[in-house]
Amino acid sequence: MSVAESHSEPPRADPAPAIAELQALLGERLSTAEAVREQHGKDVSYHEGFPPDAVAFAESTEEVAEIVKICARHKTPVIPFGTGTSLEGHIAALRGGISVDVSRMTAILEVNQEDLDCRVQAGVTRKGLNEYLRDSGLFFPIDPGADASLGGMAATRASGTNAVRYGTMRENVLGLTVVTADGRIVRTGGRARKSSAGYDLTRLFVGSEGTLGVITELQLRLYGIPEATSAAVCAFTDLEGAVNTVIATIQLGVPVARIELLDEVQMRACNLYSKLDFPEQPTLFFEFHGTEAGVQEQAETVGALAAEHGGANFQWATRQEDRSQLWQARHDAYWAAKALKPGSEGWATDVCVPISRLAECILATKKDILDSGLLAPIVGHVGDGNFHLVYLLDPDDPTQHDKAEEVNDRMIARALRMGGTCTGEHGIGYGKMQFLQAEHGEAVALMRQVKLSLDPDNIMNPGKMVRT
Amino acid sequence: MSVAESHSEPPRADPAPAIAELQALLGERLSTAEAVREQHGKDVSYHEGFPPDAVAFAESTEEVAEIVKICARHKTPVIPFGTGTSLEGHIAALRGGISVDVSRMTAILEVNQEDLDCRVQAGVTRKGLNEYLRDSGLFFPIDPGADASLGGMAATRASGTNAVRYGTMRENVLGLTVVTADGRIVRTGGRARKSSAGYDLTRLFVGSEGTLGVITELQLRLYGIPEATSAAVCAFTDLEGAVNTVIATIQLGVPVARIELLDEVQMRACNLYSKLDFPEQPTLFFEFHGTEAGVQEQAETVGALAAEHGGANFQWATRQEDRSQLWQARHDAYWAAKALKPGSEGWATDVCVPISRLAECILATKKDILDSGLLAPIVGHVGDGNFHLVYLLDPDDPTQHDKAEEVNDRMIARALRMGGTCTGEHGIGYGKMQFLQAEHGEAVALMRQVKLSLDPDNIMNPGKMVRT
Repeated sequence: MSVAESHSEPPRADPAPAIAELQALLGERLSTAEAVREQHGKDVSYHEGFPPDAVAFAESTEEVAEIVKICARHKTPVIPFGTGTSLEGHIAALRGGISVDVSRMTAILEVNQEDLDCRVQAGVTRKGLNEYLRDSGLFFPIDPGADASLGGMAATRASGTNAVRYGTMRENVLGLTVVTADGRIVRTGGRARKSSAGYDLTRLFVGSEGTLGVITELQLRLYGIPEATSAAVCAFTDLEGAVNTVIATIQLGVPVARIELLDEVQMRACNLYSKLDFPEQPTLFFEFHGTEAGVQEQAETVGALAAEHGGANFQWATRQEDRSQLWQARHDAYWAAKALKPGSEGWATDVCVPISRLAECILATKKDILDSGLLAPIVGHVGDGNFHLVYLLDPDDPTQHDKAEEVNDRMIARALRMGGTCTGEHGIGYGKMQFLQAEHGEAVALMRQVKLSLDPDNIMNPGKMVRT
Repeated sequence: MSVAESHSEPPRADPAPAIAELQALLGERLSTAEAVREQHGKDVSYHEGFPPDAVAFAESTEEVAEIVKICARHKTPVIPFGTGTSLEGHIAALRGGISVDVSRMTAILEVNQEDLDCRVQAGVTRKGLNEYLRDSGLFFPIDPGADASLGGMAATRASGTNAVRYGTMRENVLGLTVVTADGRIVRTGGRARKSSAGYDLTRLFVGSEGTLGVITELQLRLYGIPEATSAAVCAFTDLEGAVNTVIATIQLGVPVARIELLDEVQMRACNLYSKLDFPEQPTLFFEFHGTEAGVQEQAETVGALAAEHGGANFQWATRQEDRSQLWQARHDAYWAAKALKPGSEGWATDVCVPISRLAECILATKKDILDSGLLAPIVGHVGDGNFHLVYLLDPDDPTQHDKAEEVNDRMIARALRMGGTCTGEHGIGYGKMQFLQAEHGEAVALMRQVKLSLDPDNIMNPGKMVRT
């Protein structure tokens, strides 16, 4: 059974009545153009796209509420859309319906300098917010790679390279405005740094992937830009040495801002792509934030730990240009990987395990990759125990996809056996639903109860996360 | 209408059939002794106690599941009990039923040194855990004052003095084992540092105050004991100066472990109680964690900021004895306050506001206290914008209670107007339900939907948190 068949089983409501009402509400901001629909049904992953029946470009929370009310009346699915940069088919309109595009909702509603928080509409992107904050001395740290919308980042519980220091969207969303499945406008959380008032609805919506409601506004934590930043890079004779350096660093409480692992395949890719000459060995990239003295102390401590664990030539970069070159290479890892095998299709996936099992998990996975004859560089947010693969697949050779699926299934089963999770930051979408079940068992039944209590007609991004 | 009347309205199920079955299951570990029931229905707050019909002393997750299944079959309320140190009447059996006491579930199931996590049964207390960890170089930081059970701390989303650095239970619970209202055993979360797999059920149960299920096990984050710790104390000419020092400290990103504010009334109480001679002015207590050089740098930075804001005589204590004396005075604040007015009843309450509004909120509240003729010292976890009052009430003068209620209502309304919350860390219980409604409005309707989806017969700690 193909994905399309398995997901198009439930009867689809006729979208025409909802579309007619939405056209009356939105005029030209309701599009049924094929190109627009196609673009809104396919994310940047390898997952098959499913275009919605129409795309509604909303401009306010109130308008989103009106749109959802119309859809609810006609039991027409609603699929929230930010920038379309998700990775597990989150935006595919598996059962048709209306893509609610919030990318025009880009107002930054308030910045509270003294409280280190801000309020934004859901369509503001992380780069857009940081651009706006540039002269304030503040920044928003979460960086999943893509310039995603903050609403989408909350919906998918995004994180990225500096989660080891600043946390993920889970820790950095103080509150939300959400339009529920019946079109109510609800504010969750607040501006207080902590609260023990009521169920944590904010955290319930963070990571709910549009299946419980549409996020339209966010209250976010901000941070002061550190006085000093430095970076370092260090190659290791083996992967265990690199991972043990990270374990020791974290145990010592060194408040490292980023620790990224690139395997020797990825280092080769980066050298080729970015014309660099790093040793093609397992390598750690570090970034330190703090005072001048603080970052120096951090770098010295980590340098000593690296040396103890087979790290050679710990290079410390305090100059902005050197740091930029280093991190640009890391940021370009995906493109570098793809360039290793021109014409290939990239299938990105991730798992996250307790850090004590990380080296073992990566090495067993690398062995599987080697045995399968595939090429799949590895990069990892190693401070969190999270790593990514990109399978580089020949689109003309369908056996490669099957092999990747096999390696992937084994990797996820391995991660779960180690007490890990089937995805550290990519989410479930429709790509990892069977793994969610394997990971959470009976808890998935609870998730389904919560889903149905908040969306009894199952119109919010149906067919994702939990089977309904 | 008294609290008792308003909460005893719904028909109470006859507890006898459930008690008979529980007796068969538990033997002597099911108690109906009056003293035991009284003790289990009254927490340490001023709220009226309501004894349960019986107390079940559980020894395992499976046993809790059996107990809940029996109660579910007879629609008999279940009230989870840890140490009884909650502050908003959380454990009162408003509608009778069975208190499920997990205090004998004290196994520490695993400590993962490399991953900085552990798994414990819900009856382990925070001091018990730290005692166990003593020689491991690790510690669990959350310290709400009382030696509460970790299950209860999760259920009430506890925090305390060092939340400013280490977060609250929200940030430090990685996963839970929960017995649901129908007696299923569900594991939420996991050991991975982050995950984007499914709804965040862990965070849903953290802070749910026993109204969604019984927490029986917890996976918790641990931290390395810092290489160096130092403390400091500094008196300010006015409260604004103290608060502005804190704002500047946090904006600069100084990773301070604790910043506590004591007002001049509380300082007088501490001096009297602990035989100290601190200036009786608004005072900040600090604690710094880090490397030797790091804590020195932090203390110097904060000392300079304090001096800029009217702080005099910044005293820095690196010796363990001096630190202990300082923090003992802070820890004894409640008893010191009560000793200010011997024979008084203490009514503790808390709010939390954005830190930019903290000085204003405290000053307006102090004016209300003064105008009312009450005595109510203030202490604050000021790095989070959270502060506590203890109204010292004459039990023989009922007008004092009414006055305190009035001051309290005004304080909470003020905190909400400022974007704050009606409780930073004490919770809702049955003491603050009307304020939850004022704070969260429509979101409370969502909370109720979630509650009823997971507990349709409303047996889990009924009458608390949301009206059902």
